Amino acid sequence: MTDNTHNEARIVTENPGALNESGRLIASDRVEGTKVYNPEGEHVGSIQNFMVDKLNGKVSYAVMSFGGFLGIGERYHPLPWDALTFDPELGGYRVSVTRAQLEDAPSFAQDEDPWVDPEYGRNVYAFYGMPFYS
Amino acid sequence: MTDNTHNEARIVTENPGALNESGRLIASDRVEGTKVYNPEGEHVGSIQNFMVDKLNGKVSYAVMSFGGFLGIGERYHPLPWDALTFDPELGGYRVSVTRAQLEDAPSFAQDEDPWVDPEYGRNVYAFYGMPFYS
Repeated sequence: MTDNTHNEARIVTENPGALNESGRLIASDRVEGTKVYNPEGEHVGSIQNFMVDKLNGKVSYAVMSFGGFLGIGERYHPLPWDALTFDPELGGYRVSVTRAQLEDAPSFAQDEDPWVDPEYGRNVYAFYGMPFYS
Repeated sequence: MTDNTHNEARIVTENPGALNESGRLIASDRVEGTKVYNPEGEHVGSIQNFMVDKLNGKVSYAVMSFGGFLGIGERYHPLPWDALTFDPELGGYRVSVTRAQLEDAPSFAQDEDPWVDPEYGRNVYAFYGMPFYS
């Protein structure tokens, strides 16, 4: 809870006026930076950004960053948007994957652009056992 | 084009590794900060953030900020996502609304939360002549 408070305070400072939301809507810059936890309640990463499908306006992936320092050595894990559940008590998202599973999960480094491979997204959805979105 | 180059450079610096995208996908933090132009090519604002519908994972609104300084006096204009068209030559989005029309458009100040009114979104879509998304 302390982490969450800190996180929200940071976002408020950087993005004044940007946090308005109703129960059904959430602001993009509120999602970014939110922590992600596994079913054991361990912190496994934070939402870096998310990918929007320009054709249908849907959020296709949330990209979780993990490890590294100031971007160096950081790994990026794309997750199907629907694989994330917001947990108000944790003040973050839950994803049903253990730390060990995450090491085998699709991920990329800062200088890689995996999306050029049209199969990449399909593999991400398959890894998390979800039907591909398109 | 100069503006676009500058803008992208800024985003790259702040969000390393976050810009990967294929032709069909765009990263949330790449949309944020992008300039918006009217049909006359005038700069009418910048994308502050966008609102995602948690139920269906769709981007419902892009929120454009305009005016003010460091958030003070700034106005926020929600736009239907589909009202924006990316213009590669301008390096920004186009929206079919004149400056004068924009003054009459739905907008809110930093300390206002218009989304608590369930009719607000409907009015936004009506103003831009688009069918309400839900």
